[in-house]
Amino acid sequence: MRAPLLIALPGNEAMTECLVRLTGAEAGTLESRDFPDGETYLRFAEPLQGRSIALVATLARPNAKIPPLLFAAAAARDLGARRIGLVAPYLCYMRQDVRFHPGEAVTSRHFASLVSSAFDWLVTMDPHLHRYHALDEIYSIPARALHAGPALAEWIAANIERPFLIGPDTESAQWVSAVASACGAPFAILSKQRLGDRDVRIASQALGIGEHTPVLLDDVISSGRTILAALSVLGPQFRRPPVVIAIHGILADDAERAFAAAGARLVTTNTIPNSAAQIDVAGLQAPVVAEFAR
Amino acid sequence: MRAPLLIALPGNEAMTECLVRLTGAEAGTLESRDFPDGETYLRFAEPLQGRSIALVATLARPNAKIPPLLFAAAAARDLGARRIGLVAPYLCYMRQDVRFHPGEAVTSRHFASLVSSAFDWLVTMDPHLHRYHALDEIYSIPARALHAGPALAEWIAANIERPFLIGPDTESAQWVSAVASACGAPFAILSKQRLGDRDVRIASQALGIGEHTPVLLDDVISSGRTILAALSVLGPQFRRPPVVIAIHGILADDAERAFAAAGARLVTTNTIPNSAAQIDVAGLQAPVVAEFAR
Repeated sequence: MRAPLLIALPGNEAMTECLVRLTGAEAGTLESRDFPDGETYLRFAEPLQGRSIALVATLARPNAKIPPLLFAAAAARDLGARRIGLVAPYLCYMRQDVRFHPGEAVTSRHFASLVSSAFDWLVTMDPHLHRYHALDEIYSIPARALHAGPALAEWIAANIERPFLIGPDTESAQWVSAVASACGAPFAILSKQRLGDRDVRIASQALGIGEHTPVLLDDVISSGRTILAALSVLGPQFRRPPVVIAIHGILADDAERAFAAAGARLVTTNTIPNSAAQIDVAGLQAPVVAEFAR
Repeated sequence: MRAPLLIALPGNEAMTECLVRLTGAEAGTLESRDFPDGETYLRFAEPLQGRSIALVATLARPNAKIPPLLFAAAAARDLGARRIGLVAPYLCYMRQDVRFHPGEAVTSRHFASLVSSAFDWLVTMDPHLHRYHALDEIYSIPARALHAGPALAEWIAANIERPFLIGPDTESAQWVSAVASACGAPFAILSKQRLGDRDVRIASQALGIGEHTPVLLDDVISSGRTILAALSVLGPQFRRPPVVIAIHGILADDAERAFAAAGARLVTTNTIPNSAAQIDVAGLQAPVVAEFAR
């Protein structure tokens, strides 16, 4: 049987190359361009008949990316691909996981249903599992959620002198404590109150950071308001410049500049390409991609 | 049984109001806003249980509009809507209707399949039916394609002195001749050669326009290159300033300014909101929307 074919959607070329190198898969090419009217042209360069393929598509700012992704999967099916996987280092539409008010769209379920119809399997990193405990509550295909924690711990141990880890909210307690334990660092968890999309309140608390380097961790940085609020509340306790580490750096609203202005160094993983993406998670994904794409 | 509920996706409020007025349906509201991370929040303001609804969404520049549209339909189903229609005055992804080269995605079929899964019926205006003869070749739900021709003929008869209609290519011959006949005007059909997305060649020909007002018609104006090429080739024959009329005004690439620079007046229907949309097609859609939404 031929090796699986890993194929990047636009912007996912670097991650796909890493995964190809680490899994022994072959690299395929999806030609993609937009017509003047905003529609997308897609063409697979390699024959797909009988092959197992995976499309690599991280899904930050997802709306415009979703139709081409679904069309590519449908075309691959049409072209005879035997098995079609999705490697989405960042998985979108995981936040609306319940109907908070009557009439709301539970978009996590609707998106999961589209993906489950188009693909045979899904591999992602640290999806936002809040009220859901596992992806299979909404995805009807085999779906594996990997954890970037080990890569974060390794990076912190290698790069930060005397780290003191800070998680922004109780949701982060479990994984932040695991990262802290893996790199032998003390840690604290803050208390967060969300008042709006861009309005977050962090309770002040004495952390006893002393001469340690403050390292604030979050799973996703979108507008960055949570961590910026934490920096502002805790700043007076810091004796060393803080480091902010996120698994997924969406970095909306010019977040990078806001962190620089707050005197914080920003580091993310490469689940979403951005200028702060210094922690490589391809190695964590590769064995599972190899397993699913067989 | 209660009246159907017509609900606008963002940007379709004006068309929806017209259709509500003309059909006796009720107007519903879909709250929609984008989070900082680019995901969309959707909430139906009215209870949908047991109701027949139609979402009104024109689909120019479609990629970012498609996921919220599909989520809204899925949410409506979830919320108990009895019947869910789509009124798409402009229907997207109709151009790639065949696999021109190996490996291409036949996006018209893939998009039709998504819509057919999410909705119970579809009403649209003049979709780009080239190699397909009817929407039901790709849509598996009841789908009606309406024709703007009568509205164009009426507008031309009322607003243009001694019109001479010009169709840009053989594909346009049938409907341009019908419009010409309906407003009692002479017409001619040009010969077009497409060399690329933005590269079109129009053969020169003597039309005998004389003192008539040249009226160039096209079904879709995207970059406008076809009509701009025609204006440039035929311009020396014009004694009166030309009028350009399109059914669907996508108007990419600053097309409006290009027509103004070429000395042409641009008029489109209101299937896609734009500043040249002077020809109302709500009256053509209303009876069919009323019939389907019962």
